[in-house]
Amino acid sequence: MQFELTTSFIDQLRDDISERNDAVIKAQLHELYPADIAHIINQLNIAEAGYLYELTDDDIAADVLLELDEETRENLLATFSTKEIAEQLDNMDSDDAADVINELPQEIQDEVLSQIEDIEQAGDIAELLNYEEGTAGSLMAKELVSVYAFESVNACIDEIRRQAEDVEVMYAVYVVDQNEKLIGMLSLKKLIVSHPLAKVSEIYEADVQYVKTSTTSEEVAEIMQKYDLVVLPVVDQLGRLVGRITIDDVVDVIRETADENIQRMSGISDDVDSNDKLWRLSRARIPWLLVGMCGGIIGSRIISTYETQLQMHPEMAFFIPLIGAMGGNVGVQSSAIIVQGLANNSVISDKIAPKLFKELGVGMINGFICSTIICLYSLVIEDWKLATTVSVALFTVILCASFLGTFVPLTLNRFKINPALATGPFVTTLNDIIGISIYFLVGRILYIFL
Amino acid sequence: MQFELTTSFIDQLRDDISERNDAVIKAQLHELYPADIAHIINQLNIAEAGYLYELTDDDIAADVLLELDEETRENLLATFSTKEIAEQLDNMDSDDAADVINELPQEIQDEVLSQIEDIEQAGDIAELLNYEEGTAGSLMAKELVSVYAFESVNACIDEIRRQAEDVEVMYAVYVVDQNEKLIGMLSLKKLIVSHPLAKVSEIYEADVQYVKTSTTSEEVAEIMQKYDLVVLPVVDQLGRLVGRITIDDVVDVIRETADENIQRMSGISDDVDSNDKLWRLSRARIPWLLVGMCGGIIGSRIISTYETQLQMHPEMAFFIPLIGAMGGNVGVQSSAIIVQGLANNSVISDKIAPKLFKELGVGMINGFICSTIICLYSLVIEDWKLATTVSVALFTVILCASFLGTFVPLTLNRFKINPALATGPFVTTLNDIIGISIYFLVGRILYIFL
Repeated sequence: MQFELTTSFIDQLRDDISERNDAVIKAQLHELYPADIAHIINQLNIAEAGYLYELTDDDIAADVLLELDEETRENLLATFSTKEIAEQLDNMDSDDAADVINELPQEIQDEVLSQIEDIEQAGDIAELLNYEEGTAGSLMAKELVSVYAFESVNACIDEIRRQAEDVEVMYAVYVVDQNEKLIGMLSLKKLIVSHPLAKVSEIYEADVQYVKTSTTSEEVAEIMQKYDLVVLPVVDQLGRLVGRITIDDVVDVIRETADENIQRMSGISDDVDSNDKLWRLSRARIPWLLVGMCGGIIGSRIISTYETQLQMHPEMAFFIPLIGAMGGNVGVQSSAIIVQGLANNSVISDKIAPKLFKELGVGMINGFICSTIICLYSLVIEDWKLATTVSVALFTVILCASFLGTFVPLTLNRFKINPALATGPFVTTLNDIIGISIYFLVGRILYIFL
Repeated sequence: MQFELTTSFIDQLRDDISERNDAVIKAQLHELYPADIAHIINQLNIAEAGYLYELTDDDIAADVLLELDEETRENLLATFSTKEIAEQLDNMDSDDAADVINELPQEIQDEVLSQIEDIEQAGDIAELLNYEEGTAGSLMAKELVSVYAFESVNACIDEIRRQAEDVEVMYAVYVVDQNEKLIGMLSLKKLIVSHPLAKVSEIYEADVQYVKTSTTSEEVAEIMQKYDLVVLPVVDQLGRLVGRITIDDVVDVIRETADENIQRMSGISDDVDSNDKLWRLSRARIPWLLVGMCGGIIGSRIISTYETQLQMHPEMAFFIPLIGAMGGNVGVQSSAIIVQGLANNSVISDKIAPKLFKELGVGMINGFICSTIICLYSLVIEDWKLATTVSVALFTVILCASFLGTFVPLTLNRFKINPALATGPFVTTLNDIIGISIYFLVGRILYIFL
């Protein structure tokens, strides 16, 4: 049922485009949903993309535009006149139109806005452009149906009829007082099952969740998830209803936040994807690599202070990778659990101590298991001095890594820094350095005293 | 606006519970949403939890139960009689009730089911229990409103009135033929704005997205995200309408999938969170630690073959951590980009070669930058032989790691194994071993020939 994009489909389409088989292409496009057409266009070069977009049905062209990758959309719109862009914006919800305008070069934004035929739509978009990115104001759409509490069910239905064309998806009607302040809501179901002459004031639900325009996107996502909401009204500083946020926008926020966390954890410092240009991909990765390099250089300085010892006991070098790797692995495991707990709010952030003790407990158990195994192994392969050094160092490193893996993200979170940052190269690098220090220190003590 | 749980709130509540201040507690609970009450109960011990649950308003008790952590719910239900459990299930949507029954011990499931008073609800739950976990069948609820195409709008509204009590949230009415086969849908908005005497057949939308009961949860989530759907009908093998999936369940799937990917990437092999018991947390982490240990041991074997060389040139050991860490970091960066692309379908999985070349390009750029820096550094601090060894080895390791970080997840994905598995300890361990091998091999060659 779902459309599956394959290389052979794209190749065939490319051939059709170069042979100008318009009828064939149109028939194919007609079968597809906007998201699928966008997915196809993302794979084409700009000339092919423009050609295909021209052949798309007018009534879904705006939706296709919205579903494109940002880069593809940017390139495609660069080939449009401001008039053509304005026409597409007229067919979008106000929030989507504002997002698209925001992506356009600064110098043509005003021109595009002035060319939008529907004055109300243009005004809505202009208003939405004022809200800061990452706030409820920037997520919301202006299209909604609101009614006064003194109106009847019949009047509501008339209002819905009037606005039906603008408001594509509708789940509820909002109830406001004379000052346009939000006082409640009315589900469409309730509207349908109520008597036509009933007053809104008698049947509306006063207990309604809402956010302010300044609420952050993350908080909006959290509220909608937590309370299982499909639509959330947005009010201004005075409590007046100014917009609504729908779940599909929030699903995008949730996915983007998850993606961002994975990137932070992997040491990628910018929001990139595999279709981005080479230099952008390189640039996003080099900062954490350089941090890792610094860590490696510090590690080399530490080891160099043990140069004579290494000459006498070169076998000390054998377990350097093991100690480094285990410190890194344990640290990442610990911090992943904490970062996730913070993201899901299952960790109360002002309760650090119990988490630390628990992580240290886990570290003790796993440290004991691992160091016992390595002790037995090196007793057989090497000598008892090295065996003692490696196992004592490994146990200490695992404990340290558990501690840091818990402590660092919790502390970052306290200072309002994204804790996911700590789960990647930062914890790994820190644990590498600490691990090596512990290992050689333990080695020196044992080799001197034993 | 949103309730914020603090340690002091919990402490105060605990005091109130121990002093049996029922009136105070009830007043507080009355102010809160089910999700918030559940969040509070999760923090309490079982005696306190049971006490608080007893004081919760009857009409939201079932919702609170649903929002609890699985472990807390399990413990709480263990203190209930089968009759009490059945009462709560009667107040839930069929899909949620089925999920709760599934968590109960096998031996009491039938008894609980037989004690549910509403026969229809019991039948629905029993049917849902048959579907395999992770399929659309297990996600769907039975509560929906369906109408025949020959009915009128008025008849639809009567049908909605009749079913209104059972179906808590309603966005659309489904249209079926005489054989109960799904043929289309009708949004509530359309229903409201249409003439009461209009026939359903004249106004319904025939182009409706649906899934089969056997469709996987991931595919359901993908479809609902891609096509911005709030509700998705589910049909059986014969195309008959059997249920519907709502977006809130899918939001949970999306979040769980993201969490699971982060855990796989971090080397945690089981679905755990920070509230789980110590031994469960330890057990979930030990497998990948042991894999890391094996990697470390292999590394030690490799280095041991260069023992005499290390004795002559102990400075070779200085850069072991750097080489290992950089291999790991680059590998994780590369695979994170690919895993993410696969998850978001922006990577067409049958097109491996272009991705590999691009990653190698990124590896070349970043490898060149990093190895130039380390070359200059070690020329100043050490000698030119070591400088050459380290920089040549680092460049090669970064290229290798880029290659493996791309190749491994794409290959796993081809064999239908979760590619996120590759982004964690697996890639790191592999790169560690390969990095060390390259480093010492380059070192031996250079020290012999230069």
